[in-house]
Amino acid sequence: MAAEAVTTIDGWYALHDMRTIDWTSWKKASADERQEAINEFKSLLTKWEETEAAEKGSHVLYQVVGQKADLMFMFLRPTMNELTDLETAFNKSKFAEFLLPAYSYVSVIEMSQYSGTNSPEDPKVRERLYPILPKWEHMCFYPMNKRRSGNENWYALDFKERARLMYEHSKTGRQYAGVIKQFITGSIGFDDWEWGVTLFAHDALQLKKLVYQMRFDDVTALYGEFGEFFVGNRLTKDAIDTYLSV
Amino acid sequence: MAAEAVTTIDGWYALHDMRTIDWTSWKKASADERQEAINEFKSLLTKWEETEAAEKGSHVLYQVVGQKADLMFMFLRPTMNELTDLETAFNKSKFAEFLLPAYSYVSVIEMSQYSGTNSPEDPKVRERLYPILPKWEHMCFYPMNKRRSGNENWYALDFKERARLMYEHSKTGRQYAGVIKQFITGSIGFDDWEWGVTLFAHDALQLKKLVYQMRFDDVTALYGEFGEFFVGNRLTKDAIDTYLSV
Amino acid sequence: MAAEAVTTIDGWYALHDMRTIDWTSWKKASADERQEAINEFKSLLTKWEETEAAEKGSHVLYQVVGQKADLMFMFLRPTMNELTDLETAFNKSKFAEFLLPAYSYVSVIEMSQYSGTNSPEDPKVRERLYPILPKWEHMCFYPMNKRRSGNENWYALDFKERARLMYEHSKTGRQYAGVIKQFITGSIGFDDWEWGVTLFAHDALQLKKLVYQMRFDDVTALYGEFGEFFVGNRLTKDAIDTYLSV
Amino acid sequence: MAAEAVTTIDGWYALHDMRTIDWTSWKKASADERQEAINEFKSLLTKWEETEAAEKGSHVLYQVVGQKADLMFMFLRPTMNELTDLETAFNKSKFAEFLLPAYSYVSVIEMSQYSGTNSPEDPKVRERLYPILPKWEHMCFYPMNKRRSGNENWYALDFKERARLMYEHSKTGRQYAGVIKQFITGSIGFDDWEWGVTLFAHDALQLKKLVYQMRFDDVTALYGEFGEFFVGNRLTKDAIDTYLSV
Amino acid sequence: MAAEAVTTIDGWYALHDMRTIDWTSWKKASADERQEAINEFKSLLTKWEETEAAEKGSHVLYQVVGQKADLMFMFLRPTMNELTDLETAFNKSKFAEFLLPAYSYVSVIEMSQYSGTNSPEDPKVRERLYPILPKWEHMCFYPMNKRRSGNENWYALDFKERARLMYEHSKTGRQYAGVIKQFITGSIGFDDWEWGVTLFAHDALQLKKLVYQMRFDDVTALYGEFGEFFVGNRLTKDAIDTYLSV
Repeated sequence: MAAEAVTTIDGWYALHDMRTIDWTSWKKASADERQEAINEFKSLLTKWEETEAAEKGSHVLYQVVGQKADLMFMFLRPTMNELTDLETAFNKSKFAEFLLPAYSYVSVIEMSQYSGTNSPEDPKVRERLYPILPKWEHMCFYPMNKRRSGNENWYALDFKERARLMYEHSKTGRQYAGVIKQFITGSIGFDDWEWGVTLFAHDALQLKKLVYQMRFDDVTALYGEFGEFFVGNRLTKDAIDTYLSV
Repeated sequence: MAAEAVTTIDGWYALHDMRTIDWTSWKKASADERQEAINEFKSLLTKWEETEAAEKGSHVLYQVVGQKADLMFMFLRPTMNELTDLETAFNKSKFAEFLLPAYSYVSVIEMSQYSGTNSPEDPKVRERLYPILPKWEHMCFYPMNKRRSGNENWYALDFKERARLMYEHSKTGRQYAGVIKQFITGSIGFDDWEWGVTLFAHDALQLKKLVYQMRFDDVTALYGEFGEFFVGNRLTKDAIDTYLSV
Repeated sequence: MAAEAVTTIDGWYALHDMRTIDWTSWKKASADERQEAINEFKSLLTKWEETEAAEKGSHVLYQVVGQKADLMFMFLRPTMNELTDLETAFNKSKFAEFLLPAYSYVSVIEMSQYSGTNSPEDPKVRERLYPILPKWEHMCFYPMNKRRSGNENWYALDFKERARLMYEHSKTGRQYAGVIKQFITGSIGFDDWEWGVTLFAHDALQLKKLVYQMRFDDVTALYGEFGEFFVGNRLTKDAIDTYLSV
Repeated sequence: MAAEAVTTIDGWYALHDMRTIDWTSWKKASADERQEAINEFKSLLTKWEETEAAEKGSHVLYQVVGQKADLMFMFLRPTMNELTDLETAFNKSKFAEFLLPAYSYVSVIEMSQYSGTNSPEDPKVRERLYPILPKWEHMCFYPMNKRRSGNENWYALDFKERARLMYEHSKTGRQYAGVIKQFITGSIGFDDWEWGVTLFAHDALQLKKLVYQMRFDDVTALYGEFGEFFVGNRLTKDAIDTYLSV
Repeated sequence: MAAEAVTTIDGWYALHDMRTIDWTSWKKASADERQEAINEFKSLLTKWEETEAAEKGSHVLYQVVGQKADLMFMFLRPTMNELTDLETAFNKSKFAEFLLPAYSYVSVIEMSQYSGTNSPEDPKVRERLYPILPKWEHMCFYPMNKRRSGNENWYALDFKERARLMYEHSKTGRQYAGVIKQFITGSIGFDDWEWGVTLFAHDALQLKKLVYQMRFDDVTALYGEFGEFFVGNRLTKDAIDTYLSV
C-alpha cells in the first residue's frame, strides 16, 4: 500500500537566477553605454527594494565564486506571474545585453507538515512563508531530491519514519542557529529537482561544516541526492560601480 | 514469460515546442522589423485559432518561468505531417529569427486500455482523444518513463498488477478534478521518454501539490522516472505586444 | 565461464546523418545562392539515386519532427570509405553551409546467427544484407544496448537462452509484417551504442505501437537500453523546393 | 542511528581555474594588443607572487594536456572574497579576452580529524593548512565523492571503520613521499563534488602510478567516485612569452 | 582486506586528438590562405614523420566517419611536455583556425604485469612500449573503465582472479592476430576513463567483430564500461590536397 503523502504549507514563489558577465563585450561597450546599463540596473534594484520594504517580496544579490556564474539573484514574490514579469523586465534591460544565462531554479517556499503543528495563520509561520531574506556575507544554493531506488525509497517509507528522520535532521540544522539561515523551497512540478536549499552565512566555512555534518544524518546518507552547488559573496548596490568598472 | 502488453487508443499528435527569445537581437532590430515579426506571429496564431475553431487541432501558448525557455507552445494535430508543416512555417517566420530552440517533445494523445472499457466511438472518449486544450492560467510539462531496473521493472509486471496500480494512481488525479486538467501523451518510438504529461491549473501551487502527492502513489514511488520540468503562465494574443515591447 | 559469443553476417555500412537548418542564414542568403544550394543538393540526390539504381547502395531522406533536427538521412554503402566520401562531399556543398550537425550514427547491416540457418549466399539473405531502403511515409531511428548490470547481464546469458529470447522478440516484429519494415545495424566498435534500429511505416502510429508492444518482450523489458529517438516524415526530391522556399 | 560525523580543520580557500586559449582571435590581435595582454598578465602573476612571498596565499600555473583546457591555475587565499576579487581582476584583464572558461572548482584546504590528533596551533598542521604550493613539473587535479549507494554508503559507515579505511589509504600515499605532493580540499556545500584532489609530481608517470595503486585501496575500490581529470606541465612566468608567441 | 594492486610497465605518452573541420569558413578563406594552411599542415606532418623515423615517437592520422569529428590524430612521445608542445604548435598553425576541438584523450602506453614476466629491457617488450603505429586502413578508439559497483567490483577482486580473467580475454585478442593491431594506454590520473583502447584493421568489419566477441568475455561482460567510440579511415599526406580541395 502506498505511503501516506505529507501536506505542505506554501509561501512566496522563488526564482534563483544565475548569470555570467560577458566581460569582453562589456569592455567593448562605450563608457556611456556602460553607465546607462549600470543606472538602469540600479533602478531595478531600487524598485525591488521598494517591493521588499512594502513586504510584497524579497530578493538578494551575490557574486558567484568560480566559472559557473558571476551573479546569483534570489527573488521571492507572491505569484509566479510576478516572477516572470521581473525576469522579463530584467531580460529587456541594457545590462542584460552583457549577461549570459547560467542557471535558474523555480520553486516556492515550503513547510512540510510532518509535525503537523504549523498553522498558516500563526505569525511565526507567516514569517517563514513570507520572509525578508537576510543580507549576510555568503550564500549557497543547491537543488536536491529524495532517493527512490531499491531499498532506499523515500516515497515508499512510512509517514512516521519520514517524520522521525526529518526531525533528527532538523536537530543538526538547529545547532547552526544564528550561524546559518536556511530556506527550503519546494519544486516538484516546477523544476528538475524536488527541493531547493538556500543557505546564508556570515562565515563561508560554516556552509561547508553544516552541509558536511548533515550528510551523516540518516535522511541524507540514505536518501539525499544533490544537484549543482553555487556559492557566493554578497554584492551590495553600493559595490556595483566598483565591481563593474573596467 | 513476458508480461501481457497493454493496448492503447490514440488521438491527435502532439508537439511541445519551447523557445528562448534573443532579447539583444530583438532590441537591435528596427521598430519596423519588430512590428513585422509581431504581425506575422499573430497571423500564425490566428490561423491556428481557426484550426482550433474548426476542431481540426488545438494549441496553447505559455511564458516559461526561469531560464529554460521563454515561450512554450503545445500543438495538437491529426497527423505528424501537419505538426511538421506548422513547425516549418513557424521556423521560416520573421519572429523565429529572434528565437533559439530550447526543447521539444513529440508524442500522441494516448489512452491506455487497462480498464478495457473505452471505445474510440464513444463521444466521451473522442473528447479526450481530440481535445480542445484549456486556456487556464498555468501549464506544466514533463516527460517520464516507467522504470525497468532490478526488482522495479514495470514491463515485467503482471497486467492485472499494472492495471491496479494505474487505477490507484488515477484516484489521486481525480481529487484534483476542476483544479487540474491533465493530458497524457505517448511517445515510445517518437521521443526520448515514454510519456509526456501536460497539466493545466488556475492556481500554480496546485501543480506542485498534485505532482508531490502523486509521488507517494506506489506506481510513481516505485516506477516513475522523470525528465525536465517546464512551468509557465498563459500568454494571450492580446498580451503579446506588451510582452515584446522594448 | 564466459557465454558463447554469437556470430553475425554483415552487409552494407550505414550512416545516419541528422542536420538542423539554420533558417535565419538561409533567409539572409540571396535568391541566387539559395537556388545554387538547392540545385547542388538535388544533384547529389540524383547521384545517390543512380548509386541506388545500380544497387551499389541505398539512401533515404526524412524531415524530423521537433527541434532535434530538420533532416534525417540514412545512407548504405559497401565500404566505410564510401560513406566518408559522400559525407565529405555533402559537407563541402553549398547547402551544407546552412546546416548544423545534429546527430550521426555509424553502423553496419547485421544479421545475428542465433538460429544459425542464414547463409550469405542465400538470395533472401542477400536482400536483407544489401537492401534498397523503402520510401515509406514515416521513419524512426534509435540506438540501443543490451544491458549488462547485476542479474540482467545479456552478455553473461547462455547462448540458448539468448536465442530463445531473440526468437520470442522476432514474433512481435512479425505481427507488423507489411506495416513496419525494420533494419538492424550493428555498431559495437563503431559508435556509442551497440545497435541502431531503423523503422519505416506508412502510418506513424504503428511505430509507437510496435516499439511499445516490444517493450513488454522479456528481452526488452529486462535487457533493452535506449538512446535518443528520431522520428520523421518522408521528404521527396520534388518537395524540396517547396520545403526550402522562404 | 546516524553515523558520527567527522570534524575538520580548514585552511585557505582554493579556486582551481581552467581556461582555453582562443588561438584564432589571439593571432588576429595586433602585436601591440598581444604585448599589452602579456604584460598585464605578467603583472598579475607578479602581484600574486608578492602575495605568496608575504605568505598571504599561494598559486600555481600549469599547461593542460589535451583539449579540456590550455591553462590551469590553482589559487589559495584566506577568504572566499579574495578568490572572487582575483578572479574578477583576471576576468577584466586584456589577456582574458582571449580565453574561454573551461572548468573551475571551489573548495578549502581540509584536514579530517579521523585520528583526532591535529591541532590548528601546531606549526606542522599550519604548514598543511596554509601551504605554499610546490612548483613541480606536473600537476593533476580531480574532484571526487564518497559513494552513498546500497551497501556502499560511506556516510552510513561507523566512524572507526571510516578512520581505519582512511588510515590504510594514507599508507599508500606515504609510499610516494618526495615523489608526489598531495593536497586535499573540501568542497561539500561549495561545489558539485565533495573533495578536490591536487597532486604535484616531478615525473608525470608517478601521478598515474599513485592514483592506480590507490584504486585498489578498500576506501577507493568501494567508496571512491571520480569526476574529470586534468593533467598538465608547469608553465613558468619566463616561458609565457614563448608559449604565447605566434 | 584490499586486493593487491597490479604493477605496470609504461612506455610513450599518448595524445588522441579529434578535430572537426569548419567547412564554411574553410570555403570562405581565399585560395591562398587555404594553400598556406595546407602547406603548413604538411610541414608539421613531415616533421612528425622525421620524429617517427628517428624512433622518437609515432603518429597516425585518420578521417572520422560521422559527425563526431573529421580528423583523428594519435601521437606518441617520450614525455608529456613533447605532447603539449606539438599540440600547441598545431593549435597555432593556420590550418587550426579552421578546426574545432571535438575530443581528446591523454594516456600512456601500458603493459599490466599480471603475468609478471615482462621486462622493460626485453626488446620485444620495448617494441610494445615504444611502438611505431601501423598505417592500416581503419582505426578505432574508445576509452573504458573497469566496473566498481556492487558485486562487480574489479578493484576488490583477487589478483589471481583478475590475472585469470585478463588471460582469458587476451586469448580472444590473439584470434585476431594479423587482422587487428591493439594498443592499450593507461589513463588513470590523466583523463576521465581508466584506459584507452586503440585498434587498427585492414578491414573495418573486423573492428566490430573483435569488440563484439570480446563483450562476451567474462572480464568485459561483468566489468567493462565504455565511453565514446571513434572510427575512421586512414588519411595519407598525399590525399590531403584532394580531401581539402573545395
